[in-house]
Amino acid sequence: MSMAMQTRGPSVAQRRGAAAARPPLAPAPLARSRALRVCAAAPVAGAAKIIDGKQIAEDIRREIAAEVAALKAATGKAPGLAVVLVGARKDSETYVRSKKKACAEVGFESFGTDLPEDASEQEVLDVVARYNADPNVHGILVQLPLPKHIDEQRVLDAISITKDVDGFHPQNIGSLAMRGRSPLYVSCTPKGCLELLKRSGVELKGKTAAVVGRSNIVGLPVALLLQNEDATVTMVHSRTPDAAEVVRRADVVVAACGRAEMVRGDWIKPGAVVIDVGINAVDDAAAKRGYRLVGDVDFKGACERASAITPVPGGVGPMTIAMLLQNTLEGAKRQIGAPAN
Amino acid sequence: MSMAMQTRGPSVAQRRGAAAARPPLAPAPLARSRALRVCAAAPVAGAAKIIDGKQIAEDIRREIAAEVAALKAATGKAPGLAVVLVGARKDSETYVRSKKKACAEVGFESFGTDLPEDASEQEVLDVVARYNADPNVHGILVQLPLPKHIDEQRVLDAISITKDVDGFHPQNIGSLAMRGRSPLYVSCTPKGCLELLKRSGVELKGKTAAVVGRSNIVGLPVALLLQNEDATVTMVHSRTPDAAEVVRRADVVVAACGRAEMVRGDWIKPGAVVIDVGINAVDDAAAKRGYRLVGDVDFKGACERASAITPVPGGVGPMTIAMLLQNTLEGAKRQIGAPAN
Repeated sequence: MSMAMQTRGPSVAQRRGAAAARPPLAPAPLARSRALRVCAAAPVAGAAKIIDGKQIAEDIRREIAAEVAALKAATGKAPGLAVVLVGARKDSETYVRSKKKACAEVGFESFGTDLPEDASEQEVLDVVARYNADPNVHGILVQLPLPKHIDEQRVLDAISITKDVDGFHPQNIGSLAMRGRSPLYVSCTPKGCLELLKRSGVELKGKTAAVVGRSNIVGLPVALLLQNEDATVTMVHSRTPDAAEVVRRADVVVAACGRAEMVRGDWIKPGAVVIDVGINAVDDAAAKRGYRLVGDVDFKGACERASAITPVPGGVGPMTIAMLLQNTLEGAKRQIGAPAN
Repeated sequence: MSMAMQTRGPSVAQRRGAAAARPPLAPAPLARSRALRVCAAAPVAGAAKIIDGKQIAEDIRREIAAEVAALKAATGKAPGLAVVLVGARKDSETYVRSKKKACAEVGFESFGTDLPEDASEQEVLDVVARYNADPNVHGILVQLPLPKHIDEQRVLDAISITKDVDGFHPQNIGSLAMRGRSPLYVSCTPKGCLELLKRSGVELKGKTAAVVGRSNIVGLPVALLLQNEDATVTMVHSRTPDAAEVVRRADVVVAACGRAEMVRGDWIKPGAVVIDVGINAVDDAAAKRGYRLVGDVDFKGACERASAITPVPGGVGPMTIAMLLQNTLEGAKRQIGAPAN
């Protein structure tokens, strides 16, 4: 298995190189066809197209930059995102840094509060309350996980649902689930999955979908989104007796179980579209850093049967921040009042 | 088909007669076996047991009456339910009347406001606000549908989630959907379906479930509840390409599509448990009233394959009011402070 993985498609570096050749955020028309490329590792007969999340995310960020420029011209105001970080986890610091960088690139105003590891729950709640009240802040993001002594649920629930750009508030989840309602925000990663499907021209109505994993932040909202698009959805979880069988029936598979390559190639129905949300580090002595990143799907095996698939990295990953920016822009337009088009 | 239906099991009147022979609400131990009876219309080889919702609901109401008596003895307070009725729809008036009667029987305090058909939305909102503020009211129910000029969503959202005994608030639905959260209230009919399964000893963990229909008031919350019990759930809806195929795989079928006998007998996997939420009047010249009531499931056909099934009427129907009473009691205990056990 691990050997097979090493032979797959164009490298991340190659794709990065291709992307860097274009000016990153100048408004440009969407080129849908660019996002689909043939998987080099798969046999020609059943070669899956690669859904290039990096490229699609870049397109979206370019669209957002153009909208921000228009919003500023019309109202003099820019969307503002506040990021709250508690403690000094290396991974959280990295995420927060890239979120702030992404904000700057599209012309957002960036707010941030870094609290020490031993900050009290009340201090965090106070920061949230201040951002709730600040009219220049349109979106609030509390970087998770929080230190153990802080009740994550209480902090998330304290974020005004009008600024809940992460879409984690139960009222936003409830409105996503209910027919005839619309949430103010849809969580970024699930929204990114749907955006990848839409921009790849995948029809969902009347299709069968399997969502592997039932987390609040990915599996559940993805399933609700697919259902809202009139797919017939089954959520696969640890108590599902035969996960393979459910996945084998699915025209669309979203893997978000957090287990390296759990979804095997022969689980994939020929012609299915596969969205791989997982990102797992597996030991690899041949790799420079001693590990390589793999998804929740056996990529090479799936490539032989799927009609289209997202790579890891470079698939769903880049979409999360793009959707965070989009959510913040949408929130800002609602709160500021959108310019007339 | 219609001829076949007429030959089914013990009549509603017979079952009513059997129930009336017991004192209705005196506390009594749960007799689980009583709730299951053999379907007389089915061949002996595959005879489904009848899940007797009328009997189970009666047991629950008796349990509630005992709890109310204990609550009153300990705190001097009784649970209070407020029912708001706008207009004079005959069916709504009947429902409201039976809800009030059920409240009285278990010792609840009953509040009610009847507004004329042409009441303004603001008048309805004012009534809701008054009940929200009233410490003697622990549950508020606005009878649906409301007249067309009133925004149903706005009225339902105005009910304090702590008194939302119908469980229709998006925050309650969201908390039901999310892992690690618990809603303050679960909608009465879906909760009744689960209670029927539990009191009939049906194991859900690891089972495959099909929910036919995706309404906010039944299909969606039932699916979420089954998933919370670790079933693997597929929601079948109007865009599902092959509803029969999905149902045929299910160990547990909940039919809530609102279409008379849509779920055919041969859709049922042998040994499956069937919960029929539907109640449809179909023309029947042979019946006294010119119609008879049928569910969303072909009862006779399903009896031949299911291991257990709810009849219509006398299955899910009686559970809805029982669960409304249970929700109100739970809300009252939270708001008053439960007596020490």
